[in-house]
Amino acid sequence: MNILLTNDDGIFAPGLEALHRELKNLGQVAVVAPESEQSAVGHAISLATPLRVKQVALPGGGGGWAVTGTPADCVKIAIAELLPQPPDLVVSGINLGPNVGINVLYSGTVSAATEAAILGVKGVAVSLNTYKDADFDSAASLAGDLVRRLQQWPGWTNGVVLNINLPALPREQIRGVKVTRQDTGKLVERFQRRVDPRERVYYWLAEINEHRCVETDTDYAALQDGYVSITPIHFDLTHYTSLETLKGQGW
Amino acid sequence: MNILLTNDDGIFAPGLEALHRELKNLGQVAVVAPESEQSAVGHAISLATPLRVKQVALPGGGGGWAVTGTPADCVKIAIAELLPQPPDLVVSGINLGPNVGINVLYSGTVSAATEAAILGVKGVAVSLNTYKDADFDSAASLAGDLVRRLQQWPGWTNGVVLNINLPALPREQIRGVKVTRQDTGKLVERFQRRVDPRERVYYWLAEINEHRCVETDTDYAALQDGYVSITPIHFDLTHYTSLETLKGQGW
Repeated sequence: MNILLTNDDGIFAPGLEALHRELKNLGQVAVVAPESEQSAVGHAISLATPLRVKQVALPGGGGGWAVTGTPADCVKIAIAELLPQPPDLVVSGINLGPNVGINVLYSGTVSAATEAAILGVKGVAVSLNTYKDADFDSAASLAGDLVRRLQQWPGWTNGVVLNINLPALPREQIRGVKVTRQDTGKLVERFQRRVDPRERVYYWLAEINEHRCVETDTDYAALQDGYVSITPIHFDLTHYTSLETLKGQGW
Repeated sequence: MNILLTNDDGIFAPGLEALHRELKNLGQVAVVAPESEQSAVGHAISLATPLRVKQVALPGGGGGWAVTGTPADCVKIAIAELLPQPPDLVVSGINLGPNVGINVLYSGTVSAATEAAILGVKGVAVSLNTYKDADFDSAASLAGDLVRRLQQWPGWTNGVVLNINLPALPREQIRGVKVTRQDTGKLVERFQRRVDPRERVYYWLAEINEHRCVETDTDYAALQDGYVSITPIHFDLTHYTSLETLKGQGW
């Protein structure tokens, strides 16, 4: 199996390194990832600026391509230009921090996997539910097992991306795996209003509180309860439920 | 009605100016838009960098807020900080160029309207199917009529965004309005490989050819056929069809 590995925390991030080590057990792994951190870039692509690609030595051994662009750019240029043939699988991660609920839309990690699906390749995003003291080795080992099992899922059709979120717990404390839907709970924003040394005002998005439903079948709920969450997502944004009533408006 | 107007081409773009003039007939319009062009930023938000907000005089009269961020940032900061109360409607556009098919995922214009929906406000994105010689006055007049009619759609539930694409045709040549689904045809990328004055290689995404199905109920097909396309979209990316078969894998 040929695997393309990318992320949004940058090519030298420890989460990528740990996952790289693990995925080598599953096949040939090519690493094409952003040169610098690209968190919260969503599904941005570079049109106004060109991309540069640099071969780099990876801290865990072997080489990779560092790209001056977004995670989606990395997947595009890897498949179009850098790899001799399209990979069988694109894996993105391991992200430092969860990607559940509305944050899935802001996530560079997830958008890389979605870009793979757009290009006709299976995509998996892997995120770890902590922002500090991450045990990426343990998470990568679990992620490797999950990817192995998902490869055997006969229902994995083109265009379906698997968004995996891992609890930041020792493996024996993880309660299992739940297949979930994306939480759609509303966000509440807080901007901090600050003043710079030249007495000009600026704003910084300081926290996002999510008012979530008490529903139990979501990615957020699974992670809160100590389960691995796997959410199948896709890139058809159509709200099919509305189609007929909107058509009925007599255009 | 209180309307928030934004875009991704920047606050001084002529497409915004034309739409501003038109929307003033529908209610109070506040303009909060990116200081500079933000095309193809997708649903990026600014976490690593702060936002600055500047009051500017708009070329069409009145004032607006220019934000050093993405379209989604503009909607967030407008609702959280700049406006005295949440708007009844967020309109994004008019974009120079269509936002149909896969490009909906890359579109800053659409992501601004989606951000509105995330925050519980109705969102509309308006794009014009041309990259040059745009007649924004004609397009804005049509967009205004459509927004007026959509306001009367009783089925417009929270979380549903309307992605409107207008043909670049004189109004009498537009064949009507079609309610469509998002085209999901695969993209084919072409990167141009170039060499800079210092003999270093760089790549530039030069064109995106889309292999589209011959299906007629999509946003792309409607626009090609000279119809206005209205696609209801949402921000729940879950692929519900896969949920049960994936659950059945015996986790």
